[in-house]
Amino acid sequence: MKKNIEPCYYGDYLQLDKILGAQALQSEKYGEAAHEETLFIIVHQVYELWFKQVLHELNAVIDTFNQDTVKDQQLPQVVLRLQRVISIQRLMNDQIAIMETMTPQQFLSFRDYLVPASGFQSIQFKRLEISLGLKREFRIDFDQQSFYNRLNDKDRALLEGLEKKPSLFELVDKWLSRMPLLKMEDFDFWEYYKNAADKMLQDDYDTIASNEMLSDIEMRQELKDWQATKDNFDALFDHDQFETLRDEGKFRLSHNALLSALFIKQYSEEPVFNLPFQLITALTEIDEQLTIWRYRHAMMVQRMLGTKIGTGGSSGHHYLKKTTESNRIYLDFFNMATFLLPKNALPELPESVKRKLGF
Amino acid sequence: MKKNIEPCYYGDYLQLDKILGAQALQSEKYGEAAHEETLFIIVHQVYELWFKQVLHELNAVIDTFNQDTVKDQQLPQVVLRLQRVISIQRLMNDQIAIMETMTPQQFLSFRDYLVPASGFQSIQFKRLEISLGLKREFRIDFDQQSFYNRLNDKDRALLEGLEKKPSLFELVDKWLSRMPLLKMEDFDFWEYYKNAADKMLQDDYDTIASNEMLSDIEMRQELKDWQATKDNFDALFDHDQFETLRDEGKFRLSHNALLSALFIKQYSEEPVFNLPFQLITALTEIDEQLTIWRYRHAMMVQRMLGTKIGTGGSSGHHYLKKTTESNRIYLDFFNMATFLLPKNALPELPESVKRKLGF
Amino acid sequence: MKKNIEPCYYGDYLQLDKILGAQALQSEKYGEAAHEETLFIIVHQVYELWFKQVLHELNAVIDTFNQDTVKDQQLPQVVLRLQRVISIQRLMNDQIAIMETMTPQQFLSFRDYLVPASGFQSIQFKRLEISLGLKREFRIDFDQQSFYNRLNDKDRALLEGLEKKPSLFELVDKWLSRMPLLKMEDFDFWEYYKNAADKMLQDDYDTIASNEMLSDIEMRQELKDWQATKDNFDALFDHDQFETLRDEGKFRLSHNALLSALFIKQYSEEPVFNLPFQLITALTEIDEQLTIWRYRHAMMVQRMLGTKIGTGGSSGHHYLKKTTESNRIYLDFFNMATFLLPKNALPELPESVKRKLGF
Amino acid sequence: MKKNIEPCYYGDYLQLDKILGAQALQSEKYGEAAHEETLFIIVHQVYELWFKQVLHELNAVIDTFNQDTVKDQQLPQVVLRLQRVISIQRLMNDQIAIMETMTPQQFLSFRDYLVPASGFQSIQFKRLEISLGLKREFRIDFDQQSFYNRLNDKDRALLEGLEKKPSLFELVDKWLSRMPLLKMEDFDFWEYYKNAADKMLQDDYDTIASNEMLSDIEMRQELKDWQATKDNFDALFDHDQFETLRDEGKFRLSHNALLSALFIKQYSEEPVFNLPFQLITALTEIDEQLTIWRYRHAMMVQRMLGTKIGTGGSSGHHYLKKTTESNRIYLDFFNMATFLLPKNALPELPESVKRKLGF
Repeated sequence: MKKNIEPCYYGDYLQLDKILGAQALQSEKYGEAAHEETLFIIVHQVYELWFKQVLHELNAVIDTFNQDTVKDQQLPQVVLRLQRVISIQRLMNDQIAIMETMTPQQFLSFRDYLVPASGFQSIQFKRLEISLGLKREFRIDFDQQSFYNRLNDKDRALLEGLEKKPSLFELVDKWLSRMPLLKMEDFDFWEYYKNAADKMLQDDYDTIASNEMLSDIEMRQELKDWQATKDNFDALFDHDQFETLRDEGKFRLSHNALLSALFIKQYSEEPVFNLPFQLITALTEIDEQLTIWRYRHAMMVQRMLGTKIGTGGSSGHHYLKKTTESNRIYLDFFNMATFLLPKNALPELPESVKRKLGF
Repeated sequence: MKKNIEPCYYGDYLQLDKILGAQALQSEKYGEAAHEETLFIIVHQVYELWFKQVLHELNAVIDTFNQDTVKDQQLPQVVLRLQRVISIQRLMNDQIAIMETMTPQQFLSFRDYLVPASGFQSIQFKRLEISLGLKREFRIDFDQQSFYNRLNDKDRALLEGLEKKPSLFELVDKWLSRMPLLKMEDFDFWEYYKNAADKMLQDDYDTIASNEMLSDIEMRQELKDWQATKDNFDALFDHDQFETLRDEGKFRLSHNALLSALFIKQYSEEPVFNLPFQLITALTEIDEQLTIWRYRHAMMVQRMLGTKIGTGGSSGHHYLKKTTESNRIYLDFFNMATFLLPKNALPELPESVKRKLGF
Repeated sequence: MKKNIEPCYYGDYLQLDKILGAQALQSEKYGEAAHEETLFIIVHQVYELWFKQVLHELNAVIDTFNQDTVKDQQLPQVVLRLQRVISIQRLMNDQIAIMETMTPQQFLSFRDYLVPASGFQSIQFKRLEISLGLKREFRIDFDQQSFYNRLNDKDRALLEGLEKKPSLFELVDKWLSRMPLLKMEDFDFWEYYKNAADKMLQDDYDTIASNEMLSDIEMRQELKDWQATKDNFDALFDHDQFETLRDEGKFRLSHNALLSALFIKQYSEEPVFNLPFQLITALTEIDEQLTIWRYRHAMMVQRMLGTKIGTGGSSGHHYLKKTTESNRIYLDFFNMATFLLPKNALPELPESVKRKLGF
Repeated sequence: MKKNIEPCYYGDYLQLDKILGAQALQSEKYGEAAHEETLFIIVHQVYELWFKQVLHELNAVIDTFNQDTVKDQQLPQVVLRLQRVISIQRLMNDQIAIMETMTPQQFLSFRDYLVPASGFQSIQFKRLEISLGLKREFRIDFDQQSFYNRLNDKDRALLEGLEKKPSLFELVDKWLSRMPLLKMEDFDFWEYYKNAADKMLQDDYDTIASNEMLSDIEMRQELKDWQATKDNFDALFDHDQFETLRDEGKFRLSHNALLSALFIKQYSEEPVFNLPFQLITALTEIDEQLTIWRYRHAMMVQRMLGTKIGTGGSSGHHYLKKTTESNRIYLDFFNMATFLLPKNALPELPESVKRKLGF
């Protein structure tokens, strides 16, 4: 086989003529080359290369979940691919420090030439958001407007097409809600769980009510938070109430998917749950890393521009800070600890159930 | 000399009997040892050791600035000490990942035994905040209340004493405002600057007004932001207006200190400004790292507890998120880019001025 | 239950009086306090706290493998604990940068007071090495001598006792070699494998022999390396030859354990192999991180002392560099790629075999 | 001015068509696309982009030092550029973890198609080595051969041209040796220094000789190391002996440059030495980070290939490990602690000297 393979050279293979020939300074076009513009370009190009890699992994994972049935054999691969995405996200977060070696004044020496270019025109980043599950209906008002309004027709069409395809969020939700974890004869798990939860909530209530260190205002706030938690718990056992809260944006996962995820987290040490647990953990981590990225990115933009408007003609760091919390996708996994009960408050899984679960 | 030195042994020197004997599990006291409680204790003890080191550096820097005159010879040391603080902050931020290897369910197995202990009782962290400059008047209402209300009398007294001493923020402000950068005969820097700034603002206005990609709502928001920036610029040249904005919390630095810092940043490449520039940059970075720490910490708490109340009887992550932005100390340095002008819009510093500046 | 729990306070719980009261400067005892000695002490105390945590995890994993049978249900926990060790190792590696904020001259201001203390007296680090599997017979001559000669009787006795207990390496070796992967009727895996390996080796030989860019010397070296690889391959199928190479230190794993590990790596995507694969990967990573730590540590010592002798009366960085490569424990896992064949050169696992493998 | 600037678009500005269109899989050309080949290509392309940025900074620094006189005003910029290089190096070191998310088996699925491409063909990396100062005469034999033998004529010519230009090492050496630190009337620094050094060496000798914990072999080794240190010290004061040691490869810096660097390090807290001290520290750090990169890179290659030959037809990790220590450039700075004396053993700099030093 090897016989027919043509020799491969490093620079040709990596197409370094393209990669290393793609740094044309705007400052040079209009005047003197600004030393730091090279850094600015290269940092963004590196981000785009990583975005391409992240999309490569996400698309492969989406393809897997898009099949009629996900085979057990495919889960290890899915988990490794998502963990690779996390590794890349960590590096991208640290990469912000490289941009911060540029002083605001150095940036000023070429920023006027970049108008109206803007990081908001990164199609790959928008594809990444949509693929993960950040579709139009989940964007806050501000972002629904601005998401599409700096794009040309071709790019807008591409993204609008993507909005119509199932996102990873939707596919994982469907996969979780199909799991046969919820109705098991001979095993009254959810009733058991409800009793244990009620006891825990009562304990929490007593802890707050007897906390002498809280001021009146704080006490009221804490009791309000407690009530919200209780409402969420009640909704776990009441499909209609759950759907109401979901309509209000309190949950994004479907009722069944949330219950399955909760079950998996409660019994995560079971070998049969190991891969689903890793999957849920990986998606939680991806959401956390993306949030950290938005937050650090917002701070970097502020440090570079202060309250000046950005090259795109708007203050980027306002937008970035606003969307840091609102644009979270897998927040239900993140918040799942709300519903977790301690190990010793839970029943041991019966053998019959474990066997049944070999999904 | 060496003759009189007694032999020193590793374990004794580091007092490892104390350090390694200070992990007593609450879970073991009341029942079965929870494996992860050891991690929980050690992670917090490591944080406290780093806090001690950070305070050691900050106090030394405060002592330096607390003298009648800061000697040139002391600035390199001050900068190195602040840079060490930043290195430690970076490590502390990464350390959050260690705590996140504990699952929420593992935490549940011992959290009930910790009531009402809370990270808000870390006296060292509060000392660190106050020493950096986060005194009572700069805390948001919510935090003014809660800052002191979980402490015993001795700790409260200690912190209240510290509130009365000059913080690093105040000392640096004084040091900057004393610099002879502002009134220099024969050099009309600030007039020159004002003209250049007016031109830049006009350009920004035109950029926004002609940005066809903005919706009406966005346009209004952008013009509002622009007006705020313009007001800030105007205040630079009008002491009364500056003081008004400062009273409203728009600035924390005094007028003169802000102008000195701005001058230093504009001419940061001058060797005579190198150390002051490094100092300002280091304080900016300390603020940024502290903000990242608050934000990541808030997320970690949310991941561990969801919306459950914390062991201190309140939802820690609410508090942490609220204070992430509000508790910033050196925000004026952070935002300073607002006022920076490009190199080519600035006059060269006359030799006479440079000589005069040898502070 | 909660009723009987006494209130817990942050500072008491963490025993901060001990932790924060354990920094006594030698420099202060004999003269003026050296500012950086506090850093030196705290950095080492933090390392010792992390060592305690790593030992806590390793001992728990060793206990699990020390049972007659390791239950499937325990593997997820084992993997998570080893992954926690890796997270801590990464942080410890980054922590070296904190020590490097101390200049060599700052170190000089107190190093004379530390004689003859030395990091080689860290009992916890030695316990960690022995527990992982770095027992006396695997240390290089130089290290066999120096490992025990700075310790007091009690510490030496403790470590010598530990040498007699099974290490994690030995336990994992036993666990792997017991796996029923090697003799499966109706499935001629190893014969299949041998044929594929022979073909690959022949291809490699041809690649080298036809590489016109190699000088004569390089060619000879490459062919020698190829022959060594071939000998290793041959040993896979010949128990006696394997034992000979093992006696020469070319392998540390037993023959059966190596074959099991190879099988698992070849079919790592099988769900049934997922946890064993993660276990092997984690041990590989622990070895890599430990090696990086030794290497970076050696460089830090060299940077701090140059070729001066250390406080322990010997040049630490010589020792550290010498042991960086020689003291590797799970090198066989690390080198396992030597024997891997591409997916398409391997047979699909028959269903009957998969079922049988449900260990 | 802005009026004449054409609108700039994000994707065009970054030439994303080139950047994102430069990933052509060899596996796809000859068979089925290997999922991980995309990662392999992108990781290497990102490295090449960073290499371009590092070269951009190094070349600017070289240009600065290549002038007849380096202006004070240029030193802050030089230091910031070298610190940026360090930030990038740290990120590149962490990036190795991304490659390690690829399993050896995944690599096997396309490595045969890459023959004989090899990372040794990275011209940018070779330029980086030569520019820093790793010229032919400082390479070990093995590397002198292999450095040029995989290149085409054009690339070889380019590098051989670069070998003839002054490297950063040579320029910094010249800059240091021109400093007027060495002959100062009325200030007998070097005699003072010699006496203090002799005393320190005698103390070290006594410490070793009285160390009862050393075995005979260790004692001999330590005394041999001590003698080597003493010889180095003696050479500081004896130009001929220094040149002899330099010819033997014990030093790379010229005699005068080493003495200047030593002087700067001894008095690094003097503001006038602050920038030169930062420069020396930055070059030390660049060398350390490069060494860590080589070491981690070697381990990654070994983990991926074991002892198999690489695609370039040779075992890369052998080469990489061999060159890790031998290819160090600024080792004299790294080892400088050898010669440092404690602050209290040094004379205060006379005012007259400080004034004179305003270089």
